[in-house]
Amino acid sequence: MPEVMTAPTRAPRAPRNGVNTPVLMATVNAVKETPALGTFQFRVTNRWVGGTYSESRIESFSGAGGEHTHQIQFSYGADHPAVLVGEDRGPTPTEFLLHALAACITAGIGNIAAARGVTLTSVESRVEGDIDLQGILGLSSDVRNGYQRIRISFTIAGDAPPEKLRAIVEQSRARSAVFDVLTNGVPVDVSITTR
Amino acid sequence: MPEVMTAPTRAPRAPRNGVNTPVLMATVNAVKETPALGTFQFRVTNRWVGGTYSESRIESFSGAGGEHTHQIQFSYGADHPAVLVGEDRGPTPTEFLLHALAACITAGIGNIAAARGVTLTSVESRVEGDIDLQGILGLSSDVRNGYQRIRISFTIAGDAPPEKLRAIVEQSRARSAVFDVLTNGVPVDVSITTR
Repeated sequence: MPEVMTAPTRAPRAPRNGVNTPVLMATVNAVKETPALGTFQFRVTNRWVGGTYSESRIESFSGAGGEHTHQIQFSYGADHPAVLVGEDRGPTPTEFLLHALAACITAGIGNIAAARGVTLTSVESRVEGDIDLQGILGLSSDVRNGYQRIRISFTIAGDAPPEKLRAIVEQSRARSAVFDVLTNGVPVDVSITTR
Repeated sequence: MPEVMTAPTRAPRAPRNGVNTPVLMATVNAVKETPALGTFQFRVTNRWVGGTYSESRIESFSGAGGEHTHQIQFSYGADHPAVLVGEDRGPTPTEFLLHALAACITAGIGNIAAARGVTLTSVESRVEGDIDLQGILGLSSDVRNGYQRIRISFTIAGDAPPEKLRAIVEQSRARSAVFDVLTNGVPVDVSITTR
């Protein structure tokens, strides 16, 4: 049983922390009964604009048995800063990884706290990633291209004792999709069409 | 020797594709002579707003021997869509991973093409990530939390034969920081302070 399901509730939780807890529990139960509803596909399209700058669009995804369109058609640029031969028109792609990590664990904290009947007052985090450009510049075969280490530090406050708040963060980390991908890796297939 | 350095140039490359190629080569040489200049740290701060919605700020980084501030103080929200108990006020954190992957390889394509004297006319990509929510919902210990597979497909056009365009994409993939992190994983330290 998932820990999110074993919170010591007798009656259904009311919405809390801005989380519609009954909907959360209904979602868990729906996927439990019909596992195929849990199959999702996320998608991004990207277009090179010039130099090291490109723009991505995030518009639709599939899951829960159907196709979905985001309420907003999201668009994000990414670039290199001047010191890395770009024009700093967007963050570096590697910074978006850190944003994804913080946002994923934080979303889970909101959900898990609600499921456990804890009202949060604040959740803040800071993420740092160490990278040695000797890798991507091809100057040393001993240096990897990507981050060598990432650190994320959370500061959390709410109406529960420290150990309960701490356990919420820990449970969110243990169930985080982004934490899993970043720490364990994932197969990536690359295909190329020329025109 | 890095492949980006062994492009068959006799004279220094002029700027191309919006890439200041002389600066790119100077950067490579500077890090080659003084490896400590290649040490970078990227940082993101995140604040929970409510429910599954949080906002990140990307403002500064260190590298090339000093501290740097982005020209723009970037801010991004991330959320879950309604079908995942959120309000869809931003993309999901996992979608930002796909954006980071596309943007990282695309930035490298711009740089490498310039270094090889190839003028690009277009680079487009589409990224898909497959995820089964039985993992993050804790319904199956056999299902991972994160993506099970990611696919990225590039369509590239420029003033070079197909095999040369293809080799540029391949070299960018081989040197991509985000591709490395996503496929090989990275250690992530989590610390928690309660208030």
